Amino acid sequence: MNKEAINKLMRPKSVAVVGASSQPGKIGYTVLENLIKGGYKGKIYPINPAATEILSLPVFASVSALPEPADLAIITVPVKFANQVAEECGQKGIKALSVITSGYSEVGRNDLEKELIDIAHKYGMCVLGPNIVGSLSNSDDLNASFGPFLPFKGSATLITQSGALLIAMDAITYTRKVGFDKMISIGNMADVDFADLIEWLEDDKYTSCTCLYVEGIKDGRKFIDACRNAKKPIIALKAGTSVHGAAAAASHTGSLAGSAKVYTAAFQQAGVVQASDLNNLFDRTLALSLMPPLKGTNLLLVTNGGGVGVLATDAAEKFGIPLKFAPPDVQEELKKHMPAFGSAKNPVDMTGMAGNDWYYETVKFAYAHPWTDGLVVLYCETAMTSPVEIAQAVKKAMDDSGMKGKPIMVSMVGGTRCDKAMQWLVENGIPAYGPPDQAMNAMAALSELNRIQSMLDKTEVVSDPACAAKAAEIIAVARGDGRTALTEVEAKQIFSAYGLPIAQTWLAKCEDEAVEMAKSIGFPVVMKIISPDIVHKSDAKGVKVNIKDEAGVRESYKTILANAKVYKADANIHGIAVQEMAPSGTEVIVGSVNDATFGPTVMFGLGGIFVEVLKDVTFRVAPVNKSQIEQMLTEIRGAPMLKGVRGELPRDRAALVDVLYRYAIMISDLAGEVSETDANPILVYAEGKGVKVVDARIILKKKA
Amino acid sequence: MNKEAINKLMRPKSVAVVGASSQPGKIGYTVLENLIKGGYKGKIYPINPAATEILSLPVFASVSALPEPADLAIITVPVKFANQVAEECGQKGIKALSVITSGYSEVGRNDLEKELIDIAHKYGMCVLGPNIVGSLSNSDDLNASFGPFLPFKGSATLITQSGALLIAMDAITYTRKVGFDKMISIGNMADVDFADLIEWLEDDKYTSCTCLYVEGIKDGRKFIDACRNAKKPIIALKAGTSVHGAAAAASHTGSLAGSAKVYTAAFQQAGVVQASDLNNLFDRTLALSLMPPLKGTNLLLVTNGGGVGVLATDAAEKFGIPLKFAPPDVQEELKKHMPAFGSAKNPVDMTGMAGNDWYYETVKFAYAHPWTDGLVVLYCETAMTSPVEIAQAVKKAMDDSGMKGKPIMVSMVGGTRCDKAMQWLVENGIPAYGPPDQAMNAMAALSELNRIQSMLDKTEVVSDPACAAKAAEIIAVARGDGRTALTEVEAKQIFSAYGLPIAQTWLAKCEDEAVEMAKSIGFPVVMKIISPDIVHKSDAKGVKVNIKDEAGVRESYKTILANAKVYKADANIHGIAVQEMAPSGTEVIVGSVNDATFGPTVMFGLGGIFVEVLKDVTFRVAPVNKSQIEQMLTEIRGAPMLKGVRGELPRDRAALVDVLYRYAIMISDLAGEVSETDANPILVYAEGKGVKVVDARIILKKKA
Repeated sequence: MNKEAINKLMRPKSVAVVGASSQPGKIGYTVLENLIKGGYKGKIYPINPAATEILSLPVFASVSALPEPADLAIITVPVKFANQVAEECGQKGIKALSVITSGYSEVGRNDLEKELIDIAHKYGMCVLGPNIVGSLSNSDDLNASFGPFLPFKGSATLITQSGALLIAMDAITYTRKVGFDKMISIGNMADVDFADLIEWLEDDKYTSCTCLYVEGIKDGRKFIDACRNAKKPIIALKAGTSVHGAAAAASHTGSLAGSAKVYTAAFQQAGVVQASDLNNLFDRTLALSLMPPLKGTNLLLVTNGGGVGVLATDAAEKFGIPLKFAPPDVQEELKKHMPAFGSAKNPVDMTGMAGNDWYYETVKFAYAHPWTDGLVVLYCETAMTSPVEIAQAVKKAMDDSGMKGKPIMVSMVGGTRCDKAMQWLVENGIPAYGPPDQAMNAMAALSELNRIQSMLDKTEVVSDPACAAKAAEIIAVARGDGRTALTEVEAKQIFSAYGLPIAQTWLAKCEDEAVEMAKSIGFPVVMKIISPDIVHKSDAKGVKVNIKDEAGVRESYKTILANAKVYKADANIHGIAVQEMAPSGTEVIVGSVNDATFGPTVMFGLGGIFVEVLKDVTFRVAPVNKSQIEQMLTEIRGAPMLKGVRGELPRDRAALVDVLYRYAIMISDLAGEVSETDANPILVYAEGKGVKVVDARIILKKKA
Repeated sequence: MNKEAINKLMRPKSVAVVGASSQPGKIGYTVLENLIKGGYKGKIYPINPAATEILSLPVFASVSALPEPADLAIITVPVKFANQVAEECGQKGIKALSVITSGYSEVGRNDLEKELIDIAHKYGMCVLGPNIVGSLSNSDDLNASFGPFLPFKGSATLITQSGALLIAMDAITYTRKVGFDKMISIGNMADVDFADLIEWLEDDKYTSCTCLYVEGIKDGRKFIDACRNAKKPIIALKAGTSVHGAAAAASHTGSLAGSAKVYTAAFQQAGVVQASDLNNLFDRTLALSLMPPLKGTNLLLVTNGGGVGVLATDAAEKFGIPLKFAPPDVQEELKKHMPAFGSAKNPVDMTGMAGNDWYYETVKFAYAHPWTDGLVVLYCETAMTSPVEIAQAVKKAMDDSGMKGKPIMVSMVGGTRCDKAMQWLVENGIPAYGPPDQAMNAMAALSELNRIQSMLDKTEVVSDPACAAKAAEIIAVARGDGRTALTEVEAKQIFSAYGLPIAQTWLAKCEDEAVEMAKSIGFPVVMKIISPDIVHKSDAKGVKVNIKDEAGVRESYKTILANAKVYKADANIHGIAVQEMAPSGTEVIVGSVNDATFGPTVMFGLGGIFVEVLKDVTFRVAPVNKSQIEQMLTEIRGAPMLKGVRGELPRDRAALVDVLYRYAIMISDLAGEVSETDANPILVYAEGKGVKVVDARIILKKKA
């Protein structure tokens, strides 16, 4: 990241508008007008060779005619002139360009975009865009965009790949009362990308939470690293998660959509909370920008209406933060501010009789109590109470409690009076929502934030160069043969190099050798043909199992060899593998894909119908730390299988975690060489008994 | 249903307020004031022994002092007087009571509630409540409640078990712009219940859609019947679907929560669309009250913003109405009203350049085109366009298209200008939503309505009295023995009576008989001990499988008998079952429960890990028609198993459907006698090869 240049981009002391126009309706006019209307305090330099004054500002004929290199140049000229303007900016010593101009890669002109960036980098300039609406910042009174006004004030910052959505979201901030400091249209991300801005925003004191609208990330690893290093919460809405939607997104921005499941995995690993839709993005941003994470599971719910209390309770369970009954001492105290027919259990139902005082006393006690990890205050509009007064009571109770560092939020179910009260709450730093499920979902975001942040740094992933060197040798042999498919024996050698517990497999070159190996392994054994020309061994009748003695080995050797000759007369036969016959266990499958966005990605699932019928698999970008792997083991639907079913002992999770950990390091190390791999099946035994990788497959990347 | 009385309850020509008060703040004052403020045109009779005039109306000392029997008496007096008032109302000839008074079953006074209803029925009166807010109706300018105002005008009618929620929702109708004609607080449902009102609303010309907030239904069957007979769409939000929420709901209303899964099944069977939360209830009610069902799968999406188009596309897939590309002729026409970089595929992206004219032309063409089954128009706020003008263009396009009977809705992503435009749309009969996913979800509701309505009447369920008679004989024998557990042989006899294809099972009383039976069935056979005293046959070593010849039968007979004596010396042994050994097939499980709300309910799932590990089961209230059963087969996660996996032929769905159909009739017929049953496993063979019920279990209800 070119931090100095981005400083100038985001917080310029002077701004040049190249292509400033005197014609209302033109973007070059709108941008200039917005700078002025927004109240920008720095210098504004309109540039237009054909004008002398626009909107009462003196106009410069060209970039070179400027009295100083402006911190930021906003380029609004047509695409045919834009790169030339960039060149002039560079010559002038300008360091930051905001290229509103469109007509670049989004319409297939990747050449023009490359040229633009080459020019920029030649002069050490950073580029926002091209093809953007611009950027807006409340803290600098800077509307450097053609969006009509600065957003409702607050401390979130939006970075969006859709400029149209920026303009719409800007307007929504006022109706939804979700406050932003900055809104940044990132367009084609030809230079400055999500990662750069996330990194820069870490030091921006006006931003407490970063909010992303993502269609397609270009450099997945850079994104993950930037998010992982960020201390501030990040929330993302990923568009194009559906099959048809991904196609629509691709045609819309030209960005690679990647797999929605891999994005979800990467967000988890990066510590990014996800939003499910646009409303949810606002809901969760509000909570993340105003409240700390929810650090425990004791969520208390206070309400004046049984019905909304039940709805909120349902929502809590749905969003993964189920309610528990409050402990007896808490209940006892809470009973003091409700009628006899109220309930102090949780939800705490003060009934429709609850006025300001009960809300005050109950919230003050409940928020301060050490049992409470988080508090949701519900209010169902009644004719007898004033929502604004209830809101004020809640705020005062929170302040008077002396407690800090716990999340609290409010849900007000009612009409315009509630809307006003909720605005008051947000302006006073308390997230407020209409329907109770929105509040519960926002609270769940604070819980998710806590969970994924706690999983970021638990285990360091350590890669060993010796493993990679051993793998490189084996791969070199295959490459030397002109092959991209490794044999099972080769694949197992690489797996072994990475410490994966494979079922012992040796390659016999003659019958006697096979007998010797079988004796050494111990009967029964499995024997398989090993030939780069025979991929589907069973089809070639090249597999024999449960071979119990020497005679069996000799007979199998001959038969397999004969069958192979029948199947493919000129097959290059490496020999016959003699393999330990692993006892049966719970079948799992581990594999890898090279995701277009995130690179080597490990897949995990249970074998049999779980993968075949239920497609019950989960992903993580490699390498993966062990706490993430533990999470993988719980997030498949068949997770109970690993606890042992039908009287089985619990399966050896620790051994399985270790396998996934090593597997991910392996595919990460070999990312440059390997296109796909799998270990199918892996047998998982009872706790302490380990696992066995029974079969192994590695396919290399095609090289020119 | 006492229709005449409910007519008077819902559309009274005169209303008495018993307990009318001159003290502002008292419910007896508020109700009277609301009647007047609401503009009620009928006669209002305040009743209070201690006053002569309240709010300028002459007051009557008692019900008996009224000049006529009012159509409706609203009772607001304390509970200790309320039943006496009801008695007086009856004597006066009043036919409808709205009992706002609380202190009945909701606080455990079921005795008082029973007394109230007994009094009412003695005089042919109906009772709304007790423990309610009252009812409100725009079409009669009737605010017969202590809710502060009539709702935003529209054609939906709300029936709610939570009075507090009625007041809050009433206020929300104005901020959400979702119109209602009536809002009815149904309270304890001691007399008039959901079913009565749903039936009555069928003839109410002011109601186009019924909207329910449900905590717990009392008479599940009556509810299903009423909904099934209704022609108007019904939507329900079920509260208490979570474990903790159900407990909260039960403590809040005292109603039985029943199982959330069975409620979902019952709603499906009743033709009721479900809402997921409060916002969703408003969203879906708006669509259902203004638009016809979505009758096909060709949904077209028109937008001016790529980003919101992608979000809408994702939402469409998520809500089960995935988009398809529009056919070439449609695309060709659509291209006329967009720039070259727009997209006519679907979503139809006219780009940010789209103004009123393009919206008008595109919507008019797309709405009229026969390919289009439904249309969603998205608008992402831009600085250059006016949301209200876009709204007007959409409405005019719809009118000018000459097309009717297809759903159309609008999503406007933006600020206050969009909010105003959306209000205009709703007032002009077009549902409008902010974020695109809300619109897509509402469209999905119209699709669900179409689907579940089409499944209501396809198959008549026919029960045969001869089956029931045969079952009664077998049950009588067990009852005679003082047993509640039928033996496997008895259970299979009942299954057989209902035409279920059981694995042939005969009861042998001696060794020779067993041999004869085995020969007749054909080897191999299975043999099992049959004794009401031995429930777990395997524990008693009372099962032998794969018996291949006469010698085996003889030996097994002796061994099983000996083992049984060892296991339980004084066991009452009915004999030994000789059973056909069914070939292996896909295992499924069918069972039944008696749901507290809906009665006999059939459960279906796949055997093995599907039920044990994944809890992958689905329910329907018995009896069930065959189209619902087809639906059951598709809604389990393991559904692909029935298509055949790993090279299997597709399974015999028709035979399985028939088994579920007959099973449901059986448990429905035997509801009075049977508490639980299962058929586990049932083996399903390839298409045309049928199914076999291998094991059968029936447990009878305990009787005094």
